[in-house]
Amino acid sequence: MRISELSTVTGVPVATVKYYLREGLVPPGRVTGATRAEYDDGHVRRLRLARALVQVGGLSVAAARDVLAFLDAADGSLHEVLGAAHSALPPQLDDPHDPTRALGLVSRWGWRVHPEAPALRQLEHALRGLDDVGAAADDVRLATYADAARRVAEADVTSVPTTSPEEAATVVVIGTVLWEPVLLALRRLAQEAVSAELHTTP
Amino acid sequence: MRISELSTVTGVPVATVKYYLREGLVPPGRVTGATRAEYDDGHVRRLRLARALVQVGGLSVAAARDVLAFLDAADGSLHEVLGAAHSALPPQLDDPHDPTRALGLVSRWGWRVHPEAPALRQLEHALRGLDDVGAAADDVRLATYADAARRVAEADVTSVPTTSPEEAATVVVIGTVLWEPVLLALRRLAQEAVSAELHTTP
Repeated sequence: MRISELSTVTGVPVATVKYYLREGLVPPGRVTGATRAEYDDGHVRRLRLARALVQVGGLSVAAARDVLAFLDAADGSLHEVLGAAHSALPPQLDDPHDPTRALGLVSRWGWRVHPEAPALRQLEHALRGLDDVGAAADDVRLATYADAARRVAEADVTSVPTTSPEEAATVVVIGTVLWEPVLLALRRLAQEAVSAELHTTP
Repeated sequence: MRISELSTVTGVPVATVKYYLREGLVPPGRVTGATRAEYDDGHVRRLRLARALVQVGGLSVAAARDVLAFLDAADGSLHEVLGAAHSALPPQLDDPHDPTRALGLVSRWGWRVHPEAPALRQLEHALRGLDDVGAAADDVRLATYADAARRVAEADVTSVPTTSPEEAATVVVIGTVLWEPVLLALRRLAQEAVSAELHTTP
């Protein structure tokens, strides 16, 4: 198909398609003339994924390119794919603090996690942010969060197909990036619902 | 205290303090000379909250200013404070789609939520993003997420103090913005732990 049809099929404006092509988020089409190229179903899937990463996942174009490059290079076991995806995805923190408290928490919960896992630094950074505003995270609330996180993680991990590493990587990236806003939106809606039950009359 | 002491006490560099003062995130000190001003404990608390919103919450300076302005104006019931905080906080989406599916889900779960709640649009937007990449959210996984979200929301809402609307608003903003990265980091760590259990040998 031509670039105009690629745009129609995906609903992505032609200008955005050209931008993504220029930035390397979508591979070039097969050249069929001086100003013409042919695109196929692989381009449709890749374009949808690129748009979802940027517009729903909130990734920068540079970050989306890194994630997509990782998908192209994906191989190895499902567990390695998951670790590599987490390392490629934002947020990338250069917080100098060792994740001592975060490591202590996960080992207390019996979670087997690599000591270099980026999410450990993300957790440590978030806990320090709470300390800084004088609202240190207490262990009871953290345990409630951990229990909830584990429930959704089980649904996440069991949804990953075992057919091919590339397919698994795509599902892992989608699951990590695109289900995060689902979880955050649901948490805010649940806060409102719980608050309505506690603080208002029906 | 002088601005240098305000910086020492909070660990925020003087240049950042001046930037936040200029941008209105922190109110001016009491002028005591041509180039001098005095700051108090209220400035310390406000500065820590501003830094936490920007550096941990990831808010832009403009978004943080909006949230802080909302805190200054806070009054009304706890439930109203929560709704106002959610409306002031990012993400602010101008997605033109009505949140039909999101409304259908929350009413099926029996959650009392205002039809104009911004989180409904956030949920609808995220669900459409999943549709766009051909990975539509299934109801079973959504119900698992909703159940987990409700558990953390109960911990969140019951942690809000009922002493004063301003204190409640501060705790709601901190709880909404600063606990979000905790939840996301824990989800990724739990994914790794679950994956380790399923796909590796101890």
